[in-house]
Amino acid sequence: MVLSPAQPSIQRAEDCQYWDVSASFDVTYKVIRANGVLLSSNPLLLQLGVPEKNYREDRARRLVFVESEVFRFYSGAINRFFCGEGSRIVVLSATEKTKNLRLVERTVEQMAQFGINRRSEPVIAIGGGCLMDTIGFAASIYRRHVPYVRVPTTLLGIVDAGIGIKTGVNFGLHKNRIGSYCAPIAAVLDTTFLATLPTRHIRNGLAEVLKMAIVSDATLFQLLESHASDLVEACAESSPVSLRIINLSIQRMLEELEPNLWEHDLYRVVDFGHTFSPVIEMLKVDYLLHGEAVAIDMCISTVIAARRHLIDTTAADRIIALTDHMGLPVINSDCTAANMQTALDDVVKHRDGLQRIPVPTAIGKTTFLNDVSLQEVMEACECLQRPFSEGALG
Amino acid sequence: MVLSPAQPSIQRAEDCQYWDVSASFDVTYKVIRANGVLLSSNPLLLQLGVPEKNYREDRARRLVFVESEVFRFYSGAINRFFCGEGSRIVVLSATEKTKNLRLVERTVEQMAQFGINRRSEPVIAIGGGCLMDTIGFAASIYRRHVPYVRVPTTLLGIVDAGIGIKTGVNFGLHKNRIGSYCAPIAAVLDTTFLATLPTRHIRNGLAEVLKMAIVSDATLFQLLESHASDLVEACAESSPVSLRIINLSIQRMLEELEPNLWEHDLYRVVDFGHTFSPVIEMLKVDYLLHGEAVAIDMCISTVIAARRHLIDTTAADRIIALTDHMGLPVINSDCTAANMQTALDDVVKHRDGLQRIPVPTAIGKTTFLNDVSLQEVMEACECLQRPFSEGALG
Repeated sequence: MVLSPAQPSIQRAEDCQYWDVSASFDVTYKVIRANGVLLSSNPLLLQLGVPEKNYREDRARRLVFVESEVFRFYSGAINRFFCGEGSRIVVLSATEKTKNLRLVERTVEQMAQFGINRRSEPVIAIGGGCLMDTIGFAASIYRRHVPYVRVPTTLLGIVDAGIGIKTGVNFGLHKNRIGSYCAPIAAVLDTTFLATLPTRHIRNGLAEVLKMAIVSDATLFQLLESHASDLVEACAESSPVSLRIINLSIQRMLEELEPNLWEHDLYRVVDFGHTFSPVIEMLKVDYLLHGEAVAIDMCISTVIAARRHLIDTTAADRIIALTDHMGLPVINSDCTAANMQTALDDVVKHRDGLQRIPVPTAIGKTTFLNDVSLQEVMEACECLQRPFSEGALG
Repeated sequence: MVLSPAQPSIQRAEDCQYWDVSASFDVTYKVIRANGVLLSSNPLLLQLGVPEKNYREDRARRLVFVESEVFRFYSGAINRFFCGEGSRIVVLSATEKTKNLRLVERTVEQMAQFGINRRSEPVIAIGGGCLMDTIGFAASIYRRHVPYVRVPTTLLGIVDAGIGIKTGVNFGLHKNRIGSYCAPIAAVLDTTFLATLPTRHIRNGLAEVLKMAIVSDATLFQLLESHASDLVEACAESSPVSLRIINLSIQRMLEELEPNLWEHDLYRVVDFGHTFSPVIEMLKVDYLLHGEAVAIDMCISTVIAARRHLIDTTAADRIIALTDHMGLPVINSDCTAANMQTALDDVVKHRDGLQRIPVPTAIGKTTFLNDVSLQEVMEACECLQRPFSEGALG
């Protein structure tokens, strides 16, 4: 703190005085890929966030939030694992539709009833991206932050929503309009959960893997191309190739996130596919998944780049073909002029006055556009509506 | 980010891998004591948080939240000052009773309707401590944080609620149970607002000044003693002595806050008076003010220290006599065993397993207790219920 000027002139009421307050906040968290985290013999989940001297041999007391779909498959393992005296398992459904302030309020109510300690009883969240976002947000605001551990059970959670520090809930039709930056103690990634994840939700997560490949890793892109037809099975089985793909995707994501955890720089390559998608996703929140909306957005952004000759047609066609081959949509009927205009308007607010739209310049390389017109977006959408045999950029 | 071990063994599914993610977040904000901030000729409030290159000669567009009581007195000045095209002034009432998630939701709704830019259109909050807490919290979660400027208009806001980085709202009967640490761009302290503040609310703020004097500044304590009978008038007139007192109090508060902005250390001297008060304040939220509850708590804590011979009786008596002389309560009928037990239980949760109760060891010096029993608290309360002529510690 600097008191300026040197000493306040305390006798003169009309004087202006000021203090500069400065401080620095260090954040560290772990991203751990480890299978079998719900085996009773594995102490990992109960050790995280607890000082070693406090660690007890018996099972610890924990407040655990579990997505209802996950509990359907894993209730036995979860009940056995969290059997510490006073532990409470709260089963809830967090979807884009229910991920709102009401759900946060219910979660906070559970925290108050449980009587959680402020620092030493980490909340544990087991579920998909929506559950990670909601519980993370509730933990970040309860008593101005209690520690939490993320255990994503979907591929989207494992490669994307579970490993950063963003939390958030929807507000009306505004996606993630309310939220915080709040690092978990750790994100624990157990791919064996994918064995029970529906095919469509595996594809949903693969959309974010594809995003990382397009913006930053040509090798990852080639891996996806080579295995496009059996990727879903590979993930469900935690096969070596799926783990290689997941590792690479996480590595690239963390490399992008770490230097910019609080988004002081709004030119973010990981925002590729997140310009138009928030609007179309929220319009059809019941049946368009996040990754599906992102896939559509990535294709639109790619065609915009191709039409400007920022990326060559062959590369652009590979992106769109792979999106399609991976079972993801490349366009849908909600990409109307009105919706695209809403998206362009909102992204300018969100990215502080500039569009900053990430578009690919090659497989693994990205640039940003600040002057995309509605007409250009709509022309890109039209291209994508043509049958594939004609080539998306024909 | 450290990838450990050196390279992931990507061929073996059973391997555990982890990444350490580390980053540091720098916070800087200004606390500015300057009178006449609503004069049209004074550009300060519109310049804060705006890069110089963006600063416009005409009036800027701002979203302004104003406490209804303040607007009653200053509507003319406020309307004249915030006349930038597209500006919006939202008048609301924020009290301990209405400071909850509902009010946050209404505030966020206003932010969404206004279409606030993420980084360059700071929200301005003009009002008392409850308004600072609520708008600060809403700003901290809208789009995961938009900048805001605090203009506290009460003495409590000027010396306490307005100058730190804590935000928060009540949840049921739990005071500030939901909140965040989120620094404003600046806190702008204009003591001329105190001219229209009711006497009781000036006393309310003086309780926090008294707190800083007891825990860290014997000179400030002596100043308060010397001027106890005309402190309220001095503050209402922004007299030199009141400014000297206010400056000292702010200085001491910032010295305590700056090294511990995020409360990593839960042994906080500024928590003096905040052990028992949250419970009794919330029970009578309609008619017991924050500073009044803090005053009662300070007296209880002081008597506990005196009965343990941690502070000499003369000093303890001076503290209690000054509290009374300043027109603040020293005890009330809500200090029942049941309520005091609730307070002791909750403070242990809030201070992570230990009581950490700050008590004075002399005027300007503090220690912490971790072993206070309910009986001890109740005996202290009894002492305070005796007539003063007998001496609180007689």
